[in-house]
Amino acid sequence: MSRKIRMGMVGGGRGAFIGTVHRMAAAIDNEIELVCGAFSSDPQKSKDSGKDWYVDEDRSYGSYQEMFDAEKAREDGMDFVCIATPNHMHFPVAKAALEAGINVMSDKPATFNSAEARDLRELVNSSGLLYGLTHNYTGYPLVKEARHIVASGGIGKVRKIVVEYPQGWLATNLEADDQKQAAWRTDPARAGSSCCMGDIGTHAENLAEYITGEEIDELACEFTSFVDGRVLEDDGNCLVRYKSGAKGILYASQISVDEENGLAIRVHGETGGLYWRQDDPNTLIRAYADRYREVIRPGGNYADRLSPAAAAACRIPAGHPEGYLEAFAVLYRNYANTLRKRLNGEEPNEIDLDFPTIDDGVRGMAFIDACVESAKNNAAWTKLED
Amino acid sequence: MSRKIRMGMVGGGRGAFIGTVHRMAAAIDNEIELVCGAFSSDPQKSKDSGKDWYVDEDRSYGSYQEMFDAEKAREDGMDFVCIATPNHMHFPVAKAALEAGINVMSDKPATFNSAEARDLRELVNSSGLLYGLTHNYTGYPLVKEARHIVASGGIGKVRKIVVEYPQGWLATNLEADDQKQAAWRTDPARAGSSCCMGDIGTHAENLAEYITGEEIDELACEFTSFVDGRVLEDDGNCLVRYKSGAKGILYASQISVDEENGLAIRVHGETGGLYWRQDDPNTLIRAYADRYREVIRPGGNYADRLSPAAAAACRIPAGHPEGYLEAFAVLYRNYANTLRKRLNGEEPNEIDLDFPTIDDGVRGMAFIDACVESAKNNAAWTKLED
Amino acid sequence: MSRKIRMGMVGGGRGAFIGTVHRMAAAIDNEIELVCGAFSSDPQKSKDSGKDWYVDEDRSYGSYQEMFDAEKAREDGMDFVCIATPNHMHFPVAKAALEAGINVMSDKPATFNSAEARDLRELVNSSGLLYGLTHNYTGYPLVKEARHIVASGGIGKVRKIVVEYPQGWLATNLEADDQKQAAWRTDPARAGSSCCMGDIGTHAENLAEYITGEEIDELACEFTSFVDGRVLEDDGNCLVRYKSGAKGILYASQISVDEENGLAIRVHGETGGLYWRQDDPNTLIRAYADRYREVIRPGGNYADRLSPAAAAACRIPAGHPEGYLEAFAVLYRNYANTLRKRLNGEEPNEIDLDFPTIDDGVRGMAFIDACVESAKNNAAWTKLED
Amino acid sequence: MSRKIRMGMVGGGRGAFIGTVHRMAAAIDNEIELVCGAFSSDPQKSKDSGKDWYVDEDRSYGSYQEMFDAEKAREDGMDFVCIATPNHMHFPVAKAALEAGINVMSDKPATFNSAEARDLRELVNSSGLLYGLTHNYTGYPLVKEARHIVASGGIGKVRKIVVEYPQGWLATNLEADDQKQAAWRTDPARAGSSCCMGDIGTHAENLAEYITGEEIDELACEFTSFVDGRVLEDDGNCLVRYKSGAKGILYASQISVDEENGLAIRVHGETGGLYWRQDDPNTLIRAYADRYREVIRPGGNYADRLSPAAAAACRIPAGHPEGYLEAFAVLYRNYANTLRKRLNGEEPNEIDLDFPTIDDGVRGMAFIDACVESAKNNAAWTKLED
Repeated sequence: MSRKIRMGMVGGGRGAFIGTVHRMAAAIDNEIELVCGAFSSDPQKSKDSGKDWYVDEDRSYGSYQEMFDAEKAREDGMDFVCIATPNHMHFPVAKAALEAGINVMSDKPATFNSAEARDLRELVNSSGLLYGLTHNYTGYPLVKEARHIVASGGIGKVRKIVVEYPQGWLATNLEADDQKQAAWRTDPARAGSSCCMGDIGTHAENLAEYITGEEIDELACEFTSFVDGRVLEDDGNCLVRYKSGAKGILYASQISVDEENGLAIRVHGETGGLYWRQDDPNTLIRAYADRYREVIRPGGNYADRLSPAAAAACRIPAGHPEGYLEAFAVLYRNYANTLRKRLNGEEPNEIDLDFPTIDDGVRGMAFIDACVESAKNNAAWTKLED
Repeated sequence: MSRKIRMGMVGGGRGAFIGTVHRMAAAIDNEIELVCGAFSSDPQKSKDSGKDWYVDEDRSYGSYQEMFDAEKAREDGMDFVCIATPNHMHFPVAKAALEAGINVMSDKPATFNSAEARDLRELVNSSGLLYGLTHNYTGYPLVKEARHIVASGGIGKVRKIVVEYPQGWLATNLEADDQKQAAWRTDPARAGSSCCMGDIGTHAENLAEYITGEEIDELACEFTSFVDGRVLEDDGNCLVRYKSGAKGILYASQISVDEENGLAIRVHGETGGLYWRQDDPNTLIRAYADRYREVIRPGGNYADRLSPAAAAACRIPAGHPEGYLEAFAVLYRNYANTLRKRLNGEEPNEIDLDFPTIDDGVRGMAFIDACVESAKNNAAWTKLED
Repeated sequence: MSRKIRMGMVGGGRGAFIGTVHRMAAAIDNEIELVCGAFSSDPQKSKDSGKDWYVDEDRSYGSYQEMFDAEKAREDGMDFVCIATPNHMHFPVAKAALEAGINVMSDKPATFNSAEARDLRELVNSSGLLYGLTHNYTGYPLVKEARHIVASGGIGKVRKIVVEYPQGWLATNLEADDQKQAAWRTDPARAGSSCCMGDIGTHAENLAEYITGEEIDELACEFTSFVDGRVLEDDGNCLVRYKSGAKGILYASQISVDEENGLAIRVHGETGGLYWRQDDPNTLIRAYADRYREVIRPGGNYADRLSPAAAAACRIPAGHPEGYLEAFAVLYRNYANTLRKRLNGEEPNEIDLDFPTIDDGVRGMAFIDACVESAKNNAAWTKLED
Repeated sequence: MSRKIRMGMVGGGRGAFIGTVHRMAAAIDNEIELVCGAFSSDPQKSKDSGKDWYVDEDRSYGSYQEMFDAEKAREDGMDFVCIATPNHMHFPVAKAALEAGINVMSDKPATFNSAEARDLRELVNSSGLLYGLTHNYTGYPLVKEARHIVASGGIGKVRKIVVEYPQGWLATNLEADDQKQAAWRTDPARAGSSCCMGDIGTHAENLAEYITGEEIDELACEFTSFVDGRVLEDDGNCLVRYKSGAKGILYASQISVDEENGLAIRVHGETGGLYWRQDDPNTLIRAYADRYREVIRPGGNYADRLSPAAAAACRIPAGHPEGYLEAFAVLYRNYANTLRKRLNGEEPNEIDLDFPTIDDGVRGMAFIDACVESAKNNAAWTKLED
């Protein structure tokens, strides 16, 4: 199949933030082209948005259902849909796509709540279609390297995991000024039962489990709404027990003034440790019990030292920093490569299969549910449902 | 009074670690001289140790009681005693000193348990003598600057405090090899009810309360003994509620491989934040809601920008780093200046009074008790006793 | 004109490094599509390479001349050519393109030597076509912010500029093993009169002049070939005098073991300073005479604090790092926007015009010439030709 | 000899900066006591200063000659003199001390000019007395570790050395306001032929030669006086050729606004590299050709990994930072230990002998002379005299 994979998009119209990120990430590795979209529920806005990104006018649709129908009828129709809508629409769009026989790449969270997530898992599994979820931070080369080091015993049995995601943008009552991003995220009707943990705590959970292979068993979580009048929490702190006996701390915050996207993790094992920060993603510190610590760097210079998954996630020489979009693009590239193999009737390889799936989606929703439940009960220990 | 303040020492004989730190710190600012000691409970070892530090042979005593008696009888007798013994001796030595009319500077913790701490508080208060406690991290210039910034409203109302103290030296079963420091710290008979929180968690608590002026109301704490066969905890994680409504995380660990003395704090207020790390003590990051963050540096260059307490804690120009011993020495200098004023019948000034007292000692013991109690109860919320 | 700008490519076939960077960078902002290429002088390899990037088979040409002819004849022909060949081909390809009426975006250096550069300047100027040069480091948002700060007097009159570009990859005799990149760069016939200064020193020169607006007047330069048998220099150090009276140091090295792409600059002015490093491109340190230094960060969070040129170069929120490809993409986006305006008969705006031109190319060649000349004369002071 | 070494001091009276540093550094390791001083040429000020530091009133002298005479006559007289006067007095005081049979520890520079330095070398050598020079930066543990790594072949043959010492305090015309430190340093009559290179460039030279064992053969140096009306240079930049064939850059500046004491060095060898900065002295980065770089830390935790000289320079566990005073104190401790051995008729050991001597002093003066000479000749290559 000698053509690019064809992507359609739902959401991401003019003025949306994450839609543009998806488009840029999908474009970087040249395996995907945007061919159509239902960029807005307002048909005119959808058309206008399509024009901005040079989509054929007749493939800018007024609704996702219309798009799925029309594209299925074309010989050169879309191969997969990128879902970049507000959270509550993730499930219905994914469901409609799968039912129309269209593969799915969804922005996180997978769904609005756990029940939907489990339904979606069933749908994906029974559909035989390919589903990806953009838990994007796992696309960074050094996150993959960290995962490899833990998996290959490089720090011994994991004992303690400290993972955090502080932001500061909700330190004031932005929603009172109707700032769009703040308004929906702090509104239970649109954001669900959690603001901070649902939006970013879940990235911390996903990162910790991805790197360490550990699964959270139970947690004790406290929620606080620091800003007057805010219903949902803007700060959450958890003590965590992993199934293996490892312990941890996980916290997220949206009121940590001037914090940008401070996702960071420290993993302590019996014989070593690992430190990584999203705002300096091209540095991974590795600690040893009996040697000085090492500064691991990604990039082509080190292709022979890095694990295959990490090396494959690097595009350029070390010291030429790759960033957030490139990490995001790794998910798209792996997804596209896997999809291409499927469409060609070939077996995908292991590296290409390394992107988040509906199982990560279900896991994330279970984490949020447990946080909410624990917080309601004065931080009582609460198990994650499978 | 034109002479140096005279210090006697209990403990700190040959091979001891912290005694030497006290001697060096006391010497730096030239206000204190070591004149006598009961360096060991073995009289010969005490004499030999005294010789190493050029103490007159007849003032190296075989017991602290003997020292107090003999020195009280001299016209040029000791002004205060530095207590650098194992923890369980802190209280009896301090008590004997106060009863003999001798001022006290004690290594932390103030006592072996809370009951003793409260008794000691009474003794100090009724004695009219001067008691200092070497919670040394509060001696750093930029810790004082941070305290000043918070107190003067520089970050607004405090919302969240994340404080941590990871170490790695107990990641293996050192006590099985009879390593001296490990042996007593992991032994309930000598260390008390806690290992990690008692030894270093209490530094985190002291630092957080010193910088922010916030007081912990209650905490939920989990203890883990990661190393096989160890009775006391080598890792402790707390969710914290402060009396003001601020929230926090506090943790300490002795199994974080290759961590040195990673005491670090982040304070998030309504309008700004502060970040400080003990291993880079000459940098304080200040975050603002509406400006780029600032890198605050200590040293003479900046004397006009720093608060008086911070400026007074600097000895040399910025960029010539001061370290742990200098911070420790600030406590000694402030204590000595206050003592000198007292001996001269003068009023001590505010800057000199800035050293930890028995109230910090009582507070620290209450913190440890609350951690132990909470940990026994599956991390149930537990109040600190006053 | 509601379509993407159409790019053709010369060079960048299978196995080439920089061609892929150009393609990725051109793709990110969705304004450019790759429609054709003469990817190799071997027609079959060109076709195969075209296939890899999903170029129509009949638009993968066997030579650039063939491509220019064929594309000029098409209604949907290429708008501009990206030149990603070895250095000695930059000039002939650019010349042919301009003569065929095709706009040019060229990898650096603009030409093989100064004479060609001046010829090319004339050709560009007389053609009325748009010429861009990918001196990519000037695409970083914070490089643009630094330029803005200097230009608006934020550090006062510039006094001293220290700029450096250390690499380590040529620390051993790679060319003896026929490593492709090493072989041509160390070969006078293919690389010209300089290896290290020509390849990376010129980036340092370009960065310094871009940020400060200062122009080098003369320099004293020493070349060394540390690796046995190497003819061209693998290390070069310069003292620099700027026309304004500012002074500086500029050095580049390819034998600084384990250095990646350590381009870094420090600008010292009368009232402040600026520090930037390519390996941490999202941090700009700004020093003041009378305040603590500031940590400037890019990203959407700070759009209101950044200068328009810097803000326009940011795509995502602060703390989501953008890297080398995004910086590269800024050049492409600005070039494409300017070209689109030209094609539409509109006036380009100031921000879009911010990409390197043939004048930067001439300047870079003059710099290399001066280094070579000075080095031949025992580091005698040597002027840059205009 | 069971007593402390007795130090007398010349200079360092009230309000002086460096005298206090010497006193604190000498006190830290408890091997030295200050017994007398000629703290000022004003006898009353000398007495008052002596009182501040608890020196017996009858041992606060009105002149150094008086002090040497009186102390030689005492049985408990001074063992050595610490010279902390302005530069032009270093030589006469050292000469008088040596002639009186008194050992010398001198602040740097050793003398006012090269001729004096060579004279002093002869005097020291013929006297049989012990002479030390406080080129203090070589006292840092990790500077010693760097020296050990180079000496033991850890980075292969040295190729390139980049060493710098930027400061910012003379960026304005402080001397016009009669600021005391600025006034003498910018005055040729009191500072000699150089301001910036003489004051701090020489530290860079000393550090580079100490760490690498390389000796500068010749240099090309440019001086600039950026501040209007200033006669001596406030900025100096050198290209450097070492005797071994290594190359380098060395620069110092006093007009780099907001720079503190940014002494920093990078050494590049055939198989590795080393990076150290004075403002973060407890971190040494070691680069390898075939492994990720390492972060070397000092402190007791790592006593078994560090070289003996570096380990001996550490007093406390890693992560408890030691700073400038401790580095300074290492010089004093080594000097005192050596002196004690001499006084006892014992052989000093290798570690104790590791402090700067008159040879470093002569070398430093030759360096300054060469800079001045080269700068006068438009940065012509100029050899260092031996």
